Amino acid sequence: MPWLKAFLRRGATAGWLLLLPVPVSATTLGRHTDPIAPVILGVTGILFFALLGRFAARRLGQPSVIGELVMGIAMGNVLYFFGADFITILREGPAVFDVMGLTLRGVELEAAARQVLGGGDHARLLQALLGPAGPELIQVAHTVDVFSRYGVIFLLFLVGLETSVEEMRRVGWESARVAVIGVAAPFVLGFAVARTLMPELDLNTDLFVAATLGATSVGITARVLRDLGRSRSATARVILGAAVMDDILGLVMLAIVSGIIVAGGVQVDTVASTILLAALFLAAAFWLGPRFLRLAVWVLRRLDIVEAKLFVSFLFVMVLAWFANFVGLATIVGAFAAGVILHDAYFVHWGDAREHRFSIRDLVAPLEAILVPIFFVLMGIQVKLESFFDTRVLVAAGALLVAAVLGKVLCGLGARREHHRLAVGLGMMPRGEVGLIFASIGKSLGVISDSLFSAVVLMVVVTTLLTPPLLTRVLRRAPGTAPPG
Amino acid sequence: MPWLKAFLRRGATAGWLLLLPVPVSATTLGRHTDPIAPVILGVTGILFFALLGRFAARRLGQPSVIGELVMGIAMGNVLYFFGADFITILREGPAVFDVMGLTLRGVELEAAARQVLGGGDHARLLQALLGPAGPELIQVAHTVDVFSRYGVIFLLFLVGLETSVEEMRRVGWESARVAVIGVAAPFVLGFAVARTLMPELDLNTDLFVAATLGATSVGITARVLRDLGRSRSATARVILGAAVMDDILGLVMLAIVSGIIVAGGVQVDTVASTILLAALFLAAAFWLGPRFLRLAVWVLRRLDIVEAKLFVSFLFVMVLAWFANFVGLATIVGAFAAGVILHDAYFVHWGDAREHRFSIRDLVAPLEAILVPIFFVLMGIQVKLESFFDTRVLVAAGALLVAAVLGKVLCGLGARREHHRLAVGLGMMPRGEVGLIFASIGKSLGVISDSLFSAVVLMVVVTTLLTPPLLTRVLRRAPGTAPPG
Repeated sequence: MPWLKAFLRRGATAGWLLLLPVPVSATTLGRHTDPIAPVILGVTGILFFALLGRFAARRLGQPSVIGELVMGIAMGNVLYFFGADFITILREGPAVFDVMGLTLRGVELEAAARQVLGGGDHARLLQALLGPAGPELIQVAHTVDVFSRYGVIFLLFLVGLETSVEEMRRVGWESARVAVIGVAAPFVLGFAVARTLMPELDLNTDLFVAATLGATSVGITARVLRDLGRSRSATARVILGAAVMDDILGLVMLAIVSGIIVAGGVQVDTVASTILLAALFLAAAFWLGPRFLRLAVWVLRRLDIVEAKLFVSFLFVMVLAWFANFVGLATIVGAFAAGVILHDAYFVHWGDAREHRFSIRDLVAPLEAILVPIFFVLMGIQVKLESFFDTRVLVAAGALLVAAVLGKVLCGLGARREHHRLAVGLGMMPRGEVGLIFASIGKSLGVISDSLFSAVVLMVVVTTLLTPPLLTRVLRRAPGTAPPG
Repeated sequence: MPWLKAFLRRGATAGWLLLLPVPVSATTLGRHTDPIAPVILGVTGILFFALLGRFAARRLGQPSVIGELVMGIAMGNVLYFFGADFITILREGPAVFDVMGLTLRGVELEAAARQVLGGGDHARLLQALLGPAGPELIQVAHTVDVFSRYGVIFLLFLVGLETSVEEMRRVGWESARVAVIGVAAPFVLGFAVARTLMPELDLNTDLFVAATLGATSVGITARVLRDLGRSRSATARVILGAAVMDDILGLVMLAIVSGIIVAGGVQVDTVASTILLAALFLAAAFWLGPRFLRLAVWVLRRLDIVEAKLFVSFLFVMVLAWFANFVGLATIVGAFAAGVILHDAYFVHWGDAREHRFSIRDLVAPLEAILVPIFFVLMGIQVKLESFFDTRVLVAAGALLVAAVLGKVLCGLGARREHHRLAVGLGMMPRGEVGLIFASIGKSLGVISDSLFSAVVLMVVVTTLLTPPLLTRVLRRAPGTAPPG
């Protein structure tokens, strides 16, 4: 590997960097400390490892998200094994919010941790929390968690930004059939697996796990299709259209399942009111959103156009995300809706044309680029590989994986005969970020246990890893559109 | 005011937005809540008010920073008066970090607040902290504080990015003379004022206040000069060069004064070791920085170039900021150094030329644009106008203001006779963000009291507001370079 050699050679000249802290720490460590310094260290460290994972994945021809997830899994288990307190705290994920909230209410840290995490052996965690750096590490972990949640919001906003209502109308019924089967089949299979293999689980949990299997992340498929020069083929259009519809169906599903969980059980009126509320929210967003945007653009047209574009976009995403949560939906539903509603055309009537070189996407991309890798690594860190030491968990995870793959392959049947049905099914397979976001919400709601979460992340990683080679093989054999150009 | 009428007319169509929450809240409020939702509300709310202030300032022909500060002062005093708990907590600024840290160590919230804030009447604050929403508000305030600190780091990074070592060499001795007088004169005058009018203050506090008066923020002057078509005149070159050197001198001053405070008193060895450490840090940064950057660019050249540029820049800023803090300097010193060292040329040797349309500045600007207004509003919120009810505080604030103005006008004497010395002095007058950052660091270190902080912010606002009209008047009278083009 010549690049490794070159790296080591070049790395040696920069190796000085590693020596710098040694003499310094002896004399001056902790002289005076800006409270932001530990936050910088934690956040930047997580981002650094995310980039290492991303870089390694690209070198191996894999999607970035896989690199970040696998790096997270490695950190969450290897560094944990070696006793890194910060990782031990991050492993508990959203629990940090609750523990902090309880200590601010006067509960002692140890009692708060026990109350949030429930029974079981939390010796390692308590040791980390109660250590001398514990309080600082909790504050940093809290910030990392906040950053990752902002990352998810920007991610779904950008997904929405790439979703065009006109295009969805154009791909029409064929994509809709694929999308509906693609959500329903994994849901039914996943529910059956959960009921059969994990009968001790709550019905709510079964529903949530089943809903998680229905998600599709089309980014990976889109890239494979582009690499093969097929991104304009009929098959590609069906897949991409269906995946976009899947996003929307998935978000509705998430709303329904969350509604059921919060209501405490499956009740017709809960389901109906959730659907109604989601419909009302979306109707309000699509009706008032453009009015609000036109007003904001009109008011802000005296500001610098780049600034105004960024500020209006940011405020719009955040307002919709907050409102979505306010009416009982997930914040990401609002962020996605904001992306679908917003487009550059709102800003086109004023300002210097030269300033229009920055699209909304360009302006939001840096925020997303810094924050989203933090989310993926954090998801990886929360995968507790020791869960799989339990054979039953391993069997259940395997069965969920099979349900996830089979359910999506089946959805290819929704496509017309003249299209490549197997390719459509395989293209719908990767779960990517959306499945992960579902699982993390389930964890926040307290219905997804640690071992289930680990199983879901495993499912996401495997379906995402399998797609590129399988799809490439299937499409290379089939006749298709020649690469354009 | 026709725009106001038009606003009201257009606003009416979007007034529906305000009606939306009413029917919804009755049925669904608090159904299930993403822990990020209150954070979104707090952060977005602060940003929204910042933008209102910015917009109003622009309409009145004032710099944005003034709009944000004044909006913050209005929020921090009017909303506080009307009992807004969130504002009451934000008013205490960096204390939130310490209160949270103490509660995580098992101290009860009330005791922690008393311990951090010292004696005095904190009834309103305790009521806010101990209310039902208290813990949530503290978490949100903590996040707002973290965001504002990241904002300052990006701000100083961008200031550094615009600082060119070559240009500083070119403007040479004349600017250096102006810069040195511009730091020394306000320091001496400020120190004299503090000693005379506030003899009860600690010597450390005097030093810190005096150092704060030395800062210069050249952005406002640069804009006035551009508006007058004089940005290429000799006077402008002297001012801009001196202001850049002032940034560096100011940061060194900050390092020395902070070193003295942490050491507990003025000791020759402390001052010497701080200067040595700062010199070592900067030497290491300037020697190793480019090597690190070349290595990082070499390693990451297989990634998308826009991504790599952003990631390398972000990591570089954060590493230097952290290291600066680690060796006992301020994080902003590292951020500034990172900006000076980094430039787009590192990335020029590879990648698609089309991708180079985004400069480092373009990529970091969105992060800065969202976070910096939060910092300025937060600074404004922390201004306690009730401090000025005390005549002695008012007199001291007035005297500091006079020292600040006089000290900078004097520095014009460093310029050559053929240049417009008064214009140079007035151009150096605005304190802007740098003075504020110093004051906020002093508050974090516990040497700047609430009333002193309020006086410093007042000084920043007044010097910044005075500069544009005075400079315009003085330059219009004097013969100068004609506007280019």
